Amino acid sequence: MIFRQLYEPLSSTYTYLLGDEDTGQAILIDPVIATMHRDLAEVHRLGLTLAYTVDTHIHADHVTAALEMKRTVGSKIAAPAWDRLPCVDFGIEEGTTFQVDGISLRPLHTPGHTDGHFAFLSAGRVFTGDALLIDGCGRTDFQNGSADALYKSVREKLFSLPDETLVYPAHDYKERFVSSIAQEKARNPRLGGDRTLDEFKTIMASLNLPYPKFIDYAVPGNRQCGVCPPNLPENLAQYCQQMSASPQG
Amino acid sequence: MIFRQLYEPLSSTYTYLLGDEDTGQAILIDPVIATMHRDLAEVHRLGLTLAYTVDTHIHADHVTAALEMKRTVGSKIAAPAWDRLPCVDFGIEEGTTFQVDGISLRPLHTPGHTDGHFAFLSAGRVFTGDALLIDGCGRTDFQNGSADALYKSVREKLFSLPDETLVYPAHDYKERFVSSIAQEKARNPRLGGDRTLDEFKTIMASLNLPYPKFIDYAVPGNRQCGVCPPNLPENLAQYCQQMSASPQG
Repeated sequence: MIFRQLYEPLSSTYTYLLGDEDTGQAILIDPVIATMHRDLAEVHRLGLTLAYTVDTHIHADHVTAALEMKRTVGSKIAAPAWDRLPCVDFGIEEGTTFQVDGISLRPLHTPGHTDGHFAFLSAGRVFTGDALLIDGCGRTDFQNGSADALYKSVREKLFSLPDETLVYPAHDYKERFVSSIAQEKARNPRLGGDRTLDEFKTIMASLNLPYPKFIDYAVPGNRQCGVCPPNLPENLAQYCQQMSASPQG
Repeated sequence: MIFRQLYEPLSSTYTYLLGDEDTGQAILIDPVIATMHRDLAEVHRLGLTLAYTVDTHIHADHVTAALEMKRTVGSKIAAPAWDRLPCVDFGIEEGTTFQVDGISLRPLHTPGHTDGHFAFLSAGRVFTGDALLIDGCGRTDFQNGSADALYKSVREKLFSLPDETLVYPAHDYKERFVSSIAQEKARNPRLGGDRTLDEFKTIMASLNLPYPKFIDYAVPGNRQCGVCPPNLPENLAQYCQQMSASPQG
């Protein structure tokens, strides 16, 4: 199995490349439109063909590259069936393994950051999206987020995985790349140890985070599998600017 | 491949269990005498037979379980050939893969913490011993330690491994379990980023660490592959006390 952890610095997003070295088929989990050409070049450099993009949820901080990658290289789009997006080729559901040749993802419905959020378990790794971050978690105050639901998703579903399972989050803001279930159970300050639901709800209610600066264009764009608004304000344009340099853009 | 990350809390040591699920053979990297019965029980519980113990170096903070495990279950002892210990069955050398059925360790001579220190590369993981810790490194002021040598070992040898290689250290004191080469290159405060050799030497010379409290019995004991002194002071006895409860002790 080929595995690469790619980073998009504007939204601090990790994109994961998984490839079957026998058949040459690959998938990308949570690709970002701003780095789509770099990521496609990496797929190509490894001698792979992109079969699918897979999103963990409808992102509010960046635009997914799913649609533009489909237009550019013909990859198909997988995303949670929960969100009923008409642009999706394969609707992810818990109980149905998502399989591309030797690449196998077991979907885990992990609501709380968004109601349709999924994590994916694959060969000793869990791609946790925004449900569980290293020493943290995604916010719960938008997109039908719920601290109650996130506590249950993490404590009951993710923390029941084997201790050695590697945690690969969708974001990190401090140059951390990987953790493990044992580590998050031991020291996640929001959700680890003997942290109670009431304590977690108090933490999440007290974050005083600003209104997400990209949500108003990112969510509608991602409900179309990744469309950049035509007339972005200049301070937001960097998020889609690479697209304008593309012959496909 | 079976993989378990075990923890010995008195010396904050990680012991790593690797098992070949097809043949049932297993090895333990850096087993600690205080937790030997727990670790042997885990090997047994997984249906495995302990073929070898493997030490990364001559430890100063705990007594290796190598000799007592050999006496108890007949496992053989692997350790760096550099140290010329007569009790060792297999002398680890760079350039010669250490192989037990499907378990393969590529030894990397990584002096600096001790002069005979080895790391082991195995299937996308590197067991870094005390050469490279998460956000840190081992001290360099005893056992022919050398900040010059450690800088070179980490920056030239370990940091040249692929970014996604998982870093499994011999110790952690803050409940962190795993890192990656990319992460340590990016944010290790002693050895990452653009840290120079001179800066690293200044850091290591300024640590003002106390004299290691166990070194005077641990090193002689470990030069015999793990012998507890017969008349330990009471404050040190916890390190070997489990042995006295053993029929083999």
